[in-house]
Amino acid sequence: MIRTAILGATGYTARDLLDLLLRHPQVQVTALTTRQDSQPHVAEVHPSLRGRLDLKLENLSPAQVAERADCVFGCLPHAASAAVVSELLEAGCRVVDFSADYRLDDPQIYTHWYGVEHPDPGRMAQTVYGLPELYRDSIRGADLVANPGCYPTAAILALAPLLKAGVIEPRGIVIDAKSGVSGAGRSAKPHLHFPEANENLTPYGVGEHRHTPEIDLILSKWCGVNTNVVFTPHLIPMDRGELVTAYADVASDVSAERLLETLQEYYTDEPFVRVLAGIPGTKQVANTNFCDITVRRVGDKAVIVSAIDNLIKGASGAAVQNFNLMYEFEETTALL
Amino acid sequence: MIRTAILGATGYTARDLLDLLLRHPQVQVTALTTRQDSQPHVAEVHPSLRGRLDLKLENLSPAQVAERADCVFGCLPHAASAAVVSELLEAGCRVVDFSADYRLDDPQIYTHWYGVEHPDPGRMAQTVYGLPELYRDSIRGADLVANPGCYPTAAILALAPLLKAGVIEPRGIVIDAKSGVSGAGRSAKPHLHFPEANENLTPYGVGEHRHTPEIDLILSKWCGVNTNVVFTPHLIPMDRGELVTAYADVASDVSAERLLETLQEYYTDEPFVRVLAGIPGTKQVANTNFCDITVRRVGDKAVIVSAIDNLIKGASGAAVQNFNLMYEFEETTALL
Amino acid sequence: MIRTAILGATGYTARDLLDLLLRHPQVQVTALTTRQDSQPHVAEVHPSLRGRLDLKLENLSPAQVAERADCVFGCLPHAASAAVVSELLEAGCRVVDFSADYRLDDPQIYTHWYGVEHPDPGRMAQTVYGLPELYRDSIRGADLVANPGCYPTAAILALAPLLKAGVIEPRGIVIDAKSGVSGAGRSAKPHLHFPEANENLTPYGVGEHRHTPEIDLILSKWCGVNTNVVFTPHLIPMDRGELVTAYADVASDVSAERLLETLQEYYTDEPFVRVLAGIPGTKQVANTNFCDITVRRVGDKAVIVSAIDNLIKGASGAAVQNFNLMYEFEETTALL
Amino acid sequence: MIRTAILGATGYTARDLLDLLLRHPQVQVTALTTRQDSQPHVAEVHPSLRGRLDLKLENLSPAQVAERADCVFGCLPHAASAAVVSELLEAGCRVVDFSADYRLDDPQIYTHWYGVEHPDPGRMAQTVYGLPELYRDSIRGADLVANPGCYPTAAILALAPLLKAGVIEPRGIVIDAKSGVSGAGRSAKPHLHFPEANENLTPYGVGEHRHTPEIDLILSKWCGVNTNVVFTPHLIPMDRGELVTAYADVASDVSAERLLETLQEYYTDEPFVRVLAGIPGTKQVANTNFCDITVRRVGDKAVIVSAIDNLIKGASGAAVQNFNLMYEFEETTALL
Repeated sequence: MIRTAILGATGYTARDLLDLLLRHPQVQVTALTTRQDSQPHVAEVHPSLRGRLDLKLENLSPAQVAERADCVFGCLPHAASAAVVSELLEAGCRVVDFSADYRLDDPQIYTHWYGVEHPDPGRMAQTVYGLPELYRDSIRGADLVANPGCYPTAAILALAPLLKAGVIEPRGIVIDAKSGVSGAGRSAKPHLHFPEANENLTPYGVGEHRHTPEIDLILSKWCGVNTNVVFTPHLIPMDRGELVTAYADVASDVSAERLLETLQEYYTDEPFVRVLAGIPGTKQVANTNFCDITVRRVGDKAVIVSAIDNLIKGASGAAVQNFNLMYEFEETTALL
Repeated sequence: MIRTAILGATGYTARDLLDLLLRHPQVQVTALTTRQDSQPHVAEVHPSLRGRLDLKLENLSPAQVAERADCVFGCLPHAASAAVVSELLEAGCRVVDFSADYRLDDPQIYTHWYGVEHPDPGRMAQTVYGLPELYRDSIRGADLVANPGCYPTAAILALAPLLKAGVIEPRGIVIDAKSGVSGAGRSAKPHLHFPEANENLTPYGVGEHRHTPEIDLILSKWCGVNTNVVFTPHLIPMDRGELVTAYADVASDVSAERLLETLQEYYTDEPFVRVLAGIPGTKQVANTNFCDITVRRVGDKAVIVSAIDNLIKGASGAAVQNFNLMYEFEETTALL
Repeated sequence: MIRTAILGATGYTARDLLDLLLRHPQVQVTALTTRQDSQPHVAEVHPSLRGRLDLKLENLSPAQVAERADCVFGCLPHAASAAVVSELLEAGCRVVDFSADYRLDDPQIYTHWYGVEHPDPGRMAQTVYGLPELYRDSIRGADLVANPGCYPTAAILALAPLLKAGVIEPRGIVIDAKSGVSGAGRSAKPHLHFPEANENLTPYGVGEHRHTPEIDLILSKWCGVNTNVVFTPHLIPMDRGELVTAYADVASDVSAERLLETLQEYYTDEPFVRVLAGIPGTKQVANTNFCDITVRRVGDKAVIVSAIDNLIKGASGAAVQNFNLMYEFEETTALL
Repeated sequence: MIRTAILGATGYTARDLLDLLLRHPQVQVTALTTRQDSQPHVAEVHPSLRGRLDLKLENLSPAQVAERADCVFGCLPHAASAAVVSELLEAGCRVVDFSADYRLDDPQIYTHWYGVEHPDPGRMAQTVYGLPELYRDSIRGADLVANPGCYPTAAILALAPLLKAGVIEPRGIVIDAKSGVSGAGRSAKPHLHFPEANENLTPYGVGEHRHTPEIDLILSKWCGVNTNVVFTPHLIPMDRGELVTAYADVASDVSAERLLETLQEYYTDEPFVRVLAGIPGTKQVANTNFCDITVRRVGDKAVIVSAIDNLIKGASGAAVQNFNLMYEFEETTALL
């Protein structure tokens, strides 16, 4: 039985993570933290979990967390997360970090995009990127895993096998991404007020979204190429679900069939990637850990479409999948 | 040409009011106020109106407003509104007040429900309630009109003619009301955050909603009976639209046909009330000033259903209808 | 390991039932039926289940089903269901029937509301109504269970303990119910077309909905009173979730506190009913088998609010709960 | 007073067209056609219009229509439309055709994409494309105008001025488009059933959508270049609104400022195109005839975003704008 804690347990990813962990036969949830001092019961913070877990959220120090938990899931904001992670690791905990802090490998690029100094730069380049479809072997037994961003998950799963096989070109890739509003977090903001976001559709962060360097880093490193993607996320009036429509130049002489076979071959044994002949939508992956993908050739472009649940495969489900690998449990435990 | 001003022009009712006034051939919009000092352009506050009106929102005193405008539409909160209205009237303006300040006639009841002293109690009992279907003659030529609440509009239009005709009983009336989220205003609040309100349905203010005494007052006064309604509003995951399902005991021997005929006869010449044999929905009245109504007899109860757009017939459209009556313009001007 | 089959496996209840059964450690899904002859794979019919179950939908006779399955979940339309259920029972299967066929106990009332002769009238009065909170002991070990309708589930759980305790009056009860669109089934119909149902809110079947006699029968029988409820369902623009707002006269001298305590006491050991001091919404029970309830006293009325997921506690989750009781598994298996 | 008829008046574009025409001071609606023989009243077909127009839909021949109307708006399917349009023109009517029949200029390309022979090929190349921002002078006084498709409207308005000015390259343009569900028409289809389309997001017609040749033709012809766009539409869970995110290689040395200025200069006098420094969303143009546009430079790509209401600027509003030009009325009549 692994004793687990969640840091920053007030948001949607923490709620969905709890929903999964409470079904996991080898997990006991022993601590939930918040930076508030009011110590609310989990049922007040997440009414859907009432009756499933009898625990308060507490303002705990890393040392206190380490006393109670073997494995810690960190749902803290960037920079705040790394400050705590190093303490937890030194105290003997293993950590799955949801923040961006250990996804990049270069402190300068981190500072450029996140606007702060990295609190733990030495560990950046040594941390495994928690995308099992690319880095399964390194995740097994790891003490710290950087849980990927939601957009990078959908984008990298769509593009990486095609880039590595050389059937699409690394230059000029366009990633047009769409996400349900839960991806923007739980804090009420004017543009996320229901009458503003409902019946509306807007791009945001055009050319400036922080997931851009993460996509470029992983694609370039894993595929051995240099990408420089144009990434445009859009806010969609729905709760959950994320879709990436990626456009890349097809390498010469590569047929539509070859593109699809490349994906099918790469993902043939993956438990959570389903390569489809048809067109995926977000609803068929909602509340699941699946990523559904297809590819079409249109003129000289490959159009690759991938769909995930932004909170599950894009966050909490991926974290449980990583946890299962870290502790060598069956990879699909609590996820099917 | 009537010079008009809107006080508190940042919300949804002000936006929809502007949309209507800009189509009105006898109206010129000359002033918009806000309590902020930043003087934003109307196109920044209401992007849908960009290019239709070149005006800034300003922090103006009542005296400044009175210099620029003949008629003032007040979209201020309760209590704040009455404080200003009396000044405007004394300065010679005519006023349509969207707040609750002049809807009730008793300062004590006002204080009980709104928790503050009324700033202008002497005018309460003398102000006409701006529901043309009940008080058209008094609205004509009035200097001050109390624009009704959205729920009272839908509820009173459903019940008043039946109560007055004596075909339903005044005691034990249940009003189960449902509204789109725009009815809750433009301020971002946690329970109105898109991922909270979307795919959700909740009652609120059960037994405590401030529209309750307004419904009871107007029904009782106009129908010459004593009602004591049980009123339960619900928040519905849609932008606009409001539906009232009201339940009342049928007076003895009254048939389903007689109930429907009573409504048809009362509303036969009304330009904005459509009595239907079928069941109304909110979509068919969305973005219109119509109220669609029907009635059924189920056992010993009359089930009356009425649908309006909460922002139009429930607020801004009603205000323009009142304005047209006050100035003796064609009642439907700018509303069809 | 219980071999289970689903009859009529193309709809939303079947999909959600499969999702639950595939997590159940004592269940093996061995047959899925459809009246089409094209034998589609379950992944074509329910894309969300791709990769979780490798089975075709087949046009099987009851005898063929009985060869493959110990327990059968019937998702067939009324009348079609009873015709098959008797055969299955005789062939030794145990059955959870989702149709209305065994919920009522009087063939004449059935014919009045459903417009057809009942194919198996002799079994009607002997079949247990599958609401564990009322009939747990009779469900244990039963061979046939009538799975309740979604509206009756929410309405009866709200009203039954209060009626039985005598704290509300049986006469004049109003049940104003609201459901997400999945409750209307999977068949595309004009009024359920997205641009018709979205941003819309309509009552339907006013005074004529077939769940009315079911509510009256169970309330009257179990509570030992005579009810004659006025029941009005409404279609809400959301996928799933159902809310009942019920209004009943309070018996004399009963306080608000006593009403709430009556519910709390009755449900104190129930695994899936959560009595709240606050107001429930549908989102906190979505995708769960929970029913959240509260009660308020408003004037002389009790206002009772209950919320369920119409497809889970209102259909498939209830069926699994019944299945667990029938086979004496832990009642919450696969449901938390 | 222009007597106007609408052919095929049962759909959403006809409803919105009626809503606009009924506000137009120079228009009298004299005939509505349907291919059904049941002669429904317009209030049965479009409940929102009840009380605004007292007219039946009739199964009229072109000759009968021509007797009653000076100007005809054709909302018929492709091929069916051209068969009727030629008759109407010969009978002296002027026509705004919503179908695709007169948008392309080459019968062979038409047959390739639409799968049928064109019924009136001789008129194809002579018909003006009804996008006033490109072809205002030719629309003035025209007898037949081909009303543009919704996607081409948003895409061409975004790209044409930039292409013509040479600040973006014509090769390799990607158009990622998103539309509310009303764009798919009023017929109930399985994938547009509310519980399928709600909380879902799917691409469709990838590389095969019939608006592709229309976009390429108009861009190439008007800009004097050769484009070969990759066009991917997506279905968004909302009623109305359409957004195009277009990606094009920036011509060398062209700055972000120069891109935006090119749009601002081109559209400076247009009544319905608003070039923004900020990012447009669909809600701010919903129920209006506006198109809001901006452009960003991201790496070597221009990212151009345009938003329209698919039923207004994308169909019925554009038709009224064309009608105003044809009859030399003020271009904005009934549209503000």
